[in-house]
Amino acid sequence: MFFIEKIKWFFSVDKELSCAIKNIFGFRPGNIFLYQLAFKHKSVASERVQGYKLSNERLEYLGDALLSAIVADYLFKKFPYKNEGFLTEMRSKIVSRASLSKLSQKMGVDKLVNYNGDGKSVFKSANGDAFEALIGAIYLDKGFEFCRKIVVKRIIEFHLDIDTLQNSDFNFKSKLLEWGQKEKQTIEFNVAGEIGEGFKKQYLIHIKVNGETIAEAKDYSIKGAEQLAAEKTWILLNEVK
Amino acid sequence: MFFIEKIKWFFSVDKELSCAIKNIFGFRPGNIFLYQLAFKHKSVASERVQGYKLSNERLEYLGDALLSAIVADYLFKKFPYKNEGFLTEMRSKIVSRASLSKLSQKMGVDKLVNYNGDGKSVFKSANGDAFEALIGAIYLDKGFEFCRKIVVKRIIEFHLDIDTLQNSDFNFKSKLLEWGQKEKQTIEFNVAGEIGEGFKKQYLIHIKVNGETIAEAKDYSIKGAEQLAAEKTWILLNEVK
Repeated sequence: MFFIEKIKWFFSVDKELSCAIKNIFGFRPGNIFLYQLAFKHKSVASERVQGYKLSNERLEYLGDALLSAIVADYLFKKFPYKNEGFLTEMRSKIVSRASLSKLSQKMGVDKLVNYNGDGKSVFKSANGDAFEALIGAIYLDKGFEFCRKIVVKRIIEFHLDIDTLQNSDFNFKSKLLEWGQKEKQTIEFNVAGEIGEGFKKQYLIHIKVNGETIAEAKDYSIKGAEQLAAEKTWILLNEVK
Repeated sequence: MFFIEKIKWFFSVDKELSCAIKNIFGFRPGNIFLYQLAFKHKSVASERVQGYKLSNERLEYLGDALLSAIVADYLFKKFPYKNEGFLTEMRSKIVSRASLSKLSQKMGVDKLVNYNGDGKSVFKSANGDAFEALIGAIYLDKGFEFCRKIVVKRIIEFHLDIDTLQNSDFNFKSKLLEWGQKEKQTIEFNVAGEIGEGFKKQYLIHIKVNGETIAEAKDYSIKGAEQLAAEKTWILLNEVK
């Protein structure tokens, strides 16, 4: 009896998740296990298979690469006369951690994420991670072409305003480095330290202009922290100018 | 008459390239223009379309993303119980500039690259770039699944020894940062400057250990220069130990 109850319970959870995916992306999952895994943040992973702790990290790695390729293909075709610099920056805007967690919340994907940690710090990165993992799951479940169509039709064209993104100023690091080169000022990005452990680990970035530390910022990725610190520096420099 | 001559000449060139691709990858190109473009390094680009100079840079951007995704998928399936850290490092080994230019020469792709510059400095990067551009061309010409099979069967499994790669020590930057964390030493990677312009532009990286500059290196990419400088530092540190 208990066993049957358990099976029932399992099926109900599967059904719930399957419906949620259908509502968000418009298709029914084939292999539901992949989607369950995609929402399992490492903070709640306990089950081990051959020593590997079952979390969404591997799917995130796969989904991150697939998403980059699909967005690259989309931008390559949408902007046939733009150079690779433009395409690269546009892609960073679309697949940035901030953009993905925003998307995740906008589409209601965040509601499906299982994680364990204080509501703020982990939440943001957990959403972006799960979003990428979900792309990985869709790719494995349905193949590249299906996954590409979902990303283009259901995510990019449905939830992102490419024209606004195009005009939004984003890459403060490259802006800062360009300015430094033009104005003959040396700009240094230093990893000044790492705070915390495991999935809560953050990187502290210091920015020096002509050897003098102007700004610092911390984030869950070095890139993220560099952007935040570069933005602070940029604002300070413009106040001085 | 001149027109007919020109057409003949064009066809002969197309035929030559088409045969070369057939010999290297085992398939006949559909849209030969894509492959011609893939081998056109920016140093020989002159023709402009809507202000965009026709070179292989856009294809390189696309191919780089596709190659990363295909290699990610390959490693994900080949190593089902390895964590994303291992998968990420293995991929960096496979798609690193050095690895791609070596592959390019091993497969004879380098013979097809059109570039203009001194034989050494440009050559290496031009080969890697063209190799990525070629992946982009194959993807646009034949689609993802075909491109994936070519990369896996004709490149990875045919020309790379995954086991050797697995055991080869590669990421000196992360090794150095791990050591710094363990030994409570601060490690800084600084972009100390940029040398040259355009496609000859190189980045100069300084590495500081506890504020003292230990090593420097330059390369066509910041990542590449960081790895070279990290390797130098690693060797120096081991001499001291």
